Amino acid sequence: MKGAEAVVRTLVDCGVTACFANPGTSEMHFVAALDTVPEMRGVLCLFEGVATGAADGYGRMTRRPAAALMHLGPGLANGLANLHNARRAGTPVVAVVGDHATYHKRYDAPLESDIDALAASVSGWVRRTSRSADAGADAADAVAASLSPPGQIATLVLPADVTWTEGGEPAGPVAPRPAPLSQAMVGHALNVLRGAGSPAGSVTILLGGTGLTRPALEAASRIASATGARLLTETFPARLERGAGVPSVARVAYFVEQAADQLAGTRHLILAGARAPVSFFAYPGKPSTPLPDDCQVHLLAGPGDDVPDALSTLADLAALGTAPVPQQAARPALPDGDLTAESAAAVIGALLPERAIVSDEANTSGVWLESATAGAPPHDWLTLTGGAIGQGLPLATGAAIACPDRPVLALEADGSAMYTASALWTHAREQLDVTTVIFSNRSYAILGIELMRTGAAGGPTARDLLDLSRPDIDFTALATAMGVPASRAVTAVEFAAQLGRALAEPGPHLIEAALPPRR
Amino acid sequence: MKGAEAVVRTLVDCGVTACFANPGTSEMHFVAALDTVPEMRGVLCLFEGVATGAADGYGRMTRRPAAALMHLGPGLANGLANLHNARRAGTPVVAVVGDHATYHKRYDAPLESDIDALAASVSGWVRRTSRSADAGADAADAVAASLSPPGQIATLVLPADVTWTEGGEPAGPVAPRPAPLSQAMVGHALNVLRGAGSPAGSVTILLGGTGLTRPALEAASRIASATGARLLTETFPARLERGAGVPSVARVAYFVEQAADQLAGTRHLILAGARAPVSFFAYPGKPSTPLPDDCQVHLLAGPGDDVPDALSTLADLAALGTAPVPQQAARPALPDGDLTAESAAAVIGALLPERAIVSDEANTSGVWLESATAGAPPHDWLTLTGGAIGQGLPLATGAAIACPDRPVLALEADGSAMYTASALWTHAREQLDVTTVIFSNRSYAILGIELMRTGAAGGPTARDLLDLSRPDIDFTALATAMGVPASRAVTAVEFAAQLGRALAEPGPHLIEAALPPRR
Repeated sequence: MKGAEAVVRTLVDCGVTACFANPGTSEMHFVAALDTVPEMRGVLCLFEGVATGAADGYGRMTRRPAAALMHLGPGLANGLANLHNARRAGTPVVAVVGDHATYHKRYDAPLESDIDALAASVSGWVRRTSRSADAGADAADAVAASLSPPGQIATLVLPADVTWTEGGEPAGPVAPRPAPLSQAMVGHALNVLRGAGSPAGSVTILLGGTGLTRPALEAASRIASATGARLLTETFPARLERGAGVPSVARVAYFVEQAADQLAGTRHLILAGARAPVSFFAYPGKPSTPLPDDCQVHLLAGPGDDVPDALSTLADLAALGTAPVPQQAARPALPDGDLTAESAAAVIGALLPERAIVSDEANTSGVWLESATAGAPPHDWLTLTGGAIGQGLPLATGAAIACPDRPVLALEADGSAMYTASALWTHAREQLDVTTVIFSNRSYAILGIELMRTGAAGGPTARDLLDLSRPDIDFTALATAMGVPASRAVTAVEFAAQLGRALAEPGPHLIEAALPPRR
Repeated sequence: MKGAEAVVRTLVDCGVTACFANPGTSEMHFVAALDTVPEMRGVLCLFEGVATGAADGYGRMTRRPAAALMHLGPGLANGLANLHNARRAGTPVVAVVGDHATYHKRYDAPLESDIDALAASVSGWVRRTSRSADAGADAADAVAASLSPPGQIATLVLPADVTWTEGGEPAGPVAPRPAPLSQAMVGHALNVLRGAGSPAGSVTILLGGTGLTRPALEAASRIASATGARLLTETFPARLERGAGVPSVARVAYFVEQAADQLAGTRHLILAGARAPVSFFAYPGKPSTPLPDDCQVHLLAGPGDDVPDALSTLADLAALGTAPVPQQAARPALPDGDLTAESAAAVIGALLPERAIVSDEANTSGVWLESATAGAPPHDWLTLTGGAIGQGLPLATGAAIACPDRPVLALEADGSAMYTASALWTHAREQLDVTTVIFSNRSYAILGIELMRTGAAGGPTARDLLDLSRPDIDFTALATAMGVPASRAVTAVEFAAQLGRALAEPGPHLIEAALPPRR
């Protein structure tokens, strides 16, 4: 068989059954192979950043890789921002990048560029297949590499002639490296928790990565109850299980001075799947880290370790017989009056369906969401792990493909939505059960805050460069242009009615939540 | 003054007066400096690929750089595809990339990535400013580097603390390296043209880069008339001056077998600003280059040389007293009947305004444009130099900012339009005189052809992955959502009426040319 078919067959045999694709000429044999390997679901995206963001969403929900198919260096470049987010999320992704035929590269044809350098900037593993006979084995290695704990980008570069040459052989799965558990690190953490110099409240356990699953959160809750340690999660979890019945853990705040308040008094920070907290940006006169100067950092489990096992082992040592503290069920009342970011959050908290998957790129409009949804039925919360905006709609795409029986809610800021808005077309094409809420405040509102925080201040010209109201973007027209039914809410009651309807109906919907403009 | 102000002041003093911007927190001091340096025009773009494509369009028209302001590695990544096209076009661009503060980088904050590797993939010059005292001088060097003939990407990485620290000093312009003229190469070309083994028609002069300006084309035309040499231009010119009164030169065809037909019999190829032709892609059993096996390639002037001077010097030696052959004025009749790619081209040829700037990303729908517009009033034609689709609407943005007194016509394929559609919002915000025509055939039609040409064939699944009709995209709704008045034409008469009206009215317009679907 041709190299392309060997790759697709191998991917399927290794459990990769979704391919988010924006192909070009170099990928035509890969595309044609989808007819001979029907177990692979090809999902067309109109921009590579949608394909990579969807692969991230798929991988976060299934903890298995999807493939993202891209066209040479420029195609990969378009996909890099969401691969950056996936890298920060520790998501397994198999990035497949078509290239010119091996013998054609020396001609420096117009699309020639340094694919390998671009791939290296986000990938934990990069390989360039040179013969069709290797294509299957290379694909199997890519899948195994992507699953290296906690998960990473594995990029397979496929020259066109490798894909169209006979001699390809499918390969079977390669056993991935297991996530280790270090008994020594568990013992060390136990000593910290029991340490003489540790009054209650002086130890904080920072949870992240796979430490944000329900079993891990329950183990952490037991430890906290038994020892008085405080719990926090990383600021931007890849996937946080939460809601009624799940122990509730606050996220480290975005702004470093607020995070410092949360961590005040912490003399020992125990990391469980998280990295030590840092300020998202530097600001003049502010510290780069929110940790107190006298805080010692201890590692219970790194992002690539078996975090749930480490926590549960530690809980059995430190908190035998102690039960976790579940979040109580509670929803806000449906508000009336003006639609604001706060009242919109209350509506979402009141209506969030059980088992919902929330793709949260609401940015400044999202500050009330954490508390408003804390007691909603159990759900998953996916956040902007790498700070590269334009993640939310693609991530929802992949989550919906991964979990067709679960409702997906994309909470999206207007500025961020415009980077990858064509994800809406894929929502329509695949009739995904995604409800998108656009928080439309007609501004890059975060930057209005950051102008002040960085001391830049700026005048009317600077302010104007952060303003999205000239012209206003009509998100209902944008959505219907791409086949997604849409409506616009200007009061809290309208928003509740529209959100309730959208959640009740299968298929994609978009609601433009018209917030007071931020100027 | 702060480093940021020194950079902006220096850019202006060096002739850079437009900045296409998609800033973030790290760039707030640069943005604030726009209030103190009002000569710099900040143009907000909703996606970095719009900013870089606009800088490319601006640079192609003015032959001076614009700045493109981007936010850390992910922002640069989003801008890379159109920087790739700009690199292939030889356009001067100053890419300014904000980075974390120098002392914050070691914390590996979420947005940290390898900016330098990304920048190197498209830039001829990369520098990272380390002190505010150097910021002005570095900016001046960046401008000079961008103007290194024929023009290149110069990337200046600005850490946030460099921008906010006092001690910045503006710098004056650095003299750019002049484009050389090689008398020896002119003499060699003359010998080839006069060579004994060169019957008429056996010499082809391939024009490219700055060899596509009117004076260069006129010199080439004189040489051709006097010597019998044939003329061709590179397949994808950055900017081709053409129309009535300008010598008309055919472009080398896209498909290699058609290009081989054009070049059949060529025993000597003289390069004047162009690179030797290569196939855009490799195909099984087809050659990588269209040149005959016995063809010798000679260099009159490389892309970085003074191509017009070389051609005019050669013309004075080889064609003294010979006049150029101007294209005669001629326009197609306005067609009626169905709207097809062919009748749409006739309408465009009939109505193209004098001094129009055409941003051509019509792809398969554009095959009739070259002949239909050949005799239209003089105009400039800008093409997809690097093959990274999503160039057309951004390029038109920058061309319109560069030349506010000229009409801009963006001819855009539906598939390509969706990569950077938010350029339309900038068209509306800046009230640019850009008329966009979307050739909507609801397909990645080129890939339908390439499935066959690569021998991939494919079945219904493959075909479905190239289909844009599920759902149809409503480009009129998409445009009005972003503030651009829009209409839809389904007959040739409707298209002519709508195009005439759009060209007559100032400001942006969009026409969806509903072509027969390509399935």
